[in-house]
Amino acid sequence: MTSSAQASPVATTAATAPTRERLLDAAAALFYREGVNIGIEALCRAAGVSKRSMYQLFTSKDDVLAASLARAGSRYLSALLPTPEADLPPRDRILHVFEHLESLSASPDYLGCPFLATAFELKNREHPANVVARRYKDALTDFFREEARRGGAHDPDLLARQLTVAFDGSSSRAVAQAQHLGGLATATATALLDTAGMS
Amino acid sequence: MTSSAQASPVATTAATAPTRERLLDAAAALFYREGVNIGIEALCRAAGVSKRSMYQLFTSKDDVLAASLARAGSRYLSALLPTPEADLPPRDRILHVFEHLESLSASPDYLGCPFLATAFELKNREHPANVVARRYKDALTDFFREEARRGGAHDPDLLARQLTVAFDGSSSRAVAQAQHLGGLATATATALLDTAGMS
Repeated sequence: MTSSAQASPVATTAATAPTRERLLDAAAALFYREGVNIGIEALCRAAGVSKRSMYQLFTSKDDVLAASLARAGSRYLSALLPTPEADLPPRDRILHVFEHLESLSASPDYLGCPFLATAFELKNREHPANVVARRYKDALTDFFREEARRGGAHDPDLLARQLTVAFDGSSSRAVAQAQHLGGLATATATALLDTAGMS
Repeated sequence: MTSSAQASPVATTAATAPTRERLLDAAAALFYREGVNIGIEALCRAAGVSKRSMYQLFTSKDDVLAASLARAGSRYLSALLPTPEADLPPRDRILHVFEHLESLSASPDYLGCPFLATAFELKNREHPANVVARRYKDALTDFFREEARRGGAHDPDLLARQLTVAFDGSSSRAVAQAQHLGGLATATATALLDTAGMS
């Protein structure tokens, strides 16, 4: 960030952009690790940003929360999905997501799907961060639906929603049980794929 | 509570018991609705209990949180499971749980499984309330395992854990999507039962 900012020909934008990104990255990490009730002071301290700078960029903490989830969520989703170059059949592209979740759950730092964590913590369903969370959950379901359709599932829409349930339930189990999944996410997805005629 | 307390022959115990129960019930409702970060003041206000009374009964807010989840959790789990008198085959006893979850998810007050919500919010896996949450999640899995065994599933232990994933994922989906499940929980459980040879 710093080097690209220094290299930017547009000094004003460059000076603003890294502050915004630094704040959002620190916020995403802190909200995930500590919860959405982290105060503005702790947030600014972690990001090395003054409150004044924060309020120049964002109107409220809710605004920071939503923007940080959108930024971190995009990376999280990209990491879950297979790359377009990965030459895999639809069933394997779906299982790739669950294998990635299995490996995430093995880390002691894994505190579950960040979108689910946000939804569970916020309570308020209309909070802008929950709108962001829903958008990403829908994007995952859309991915499953498209692969289910390509793979000839009997009911691609139902299978896609069932796979989202399996994904969220597995992520939740890793949190509630405080242990890695040990193959359960993949086994559950496999059972659903088999039933849907995508064997 | 009040009438049974008045009827109690042991005045000291009777005077203590309703305060404890009132506090735990108010705490459970408040933690569920507002999250685990509710302060002691709000808690005591909602329960109509002084802070002094609270600290005579509990050593800390964490202690209140764990005890309130244990008390509310017991009721929640009992409501989910079929009564022993319900003369149902194992498959229907399992589906009963998912049908109950479907009806819970139709309420605007439903904010997901209280054990999952606690686990997602607390972050600290060793928190006493998370130990309570795990105990109840294990109890649900134990129920599924016993029914799976009675129903002749190929691998009762795997099916029980898959059904717990389906339960948690469905509960999470109702929260993240802010809408009722519309049959998805039951359809997912049915697919898993079919694959496991419990049709």
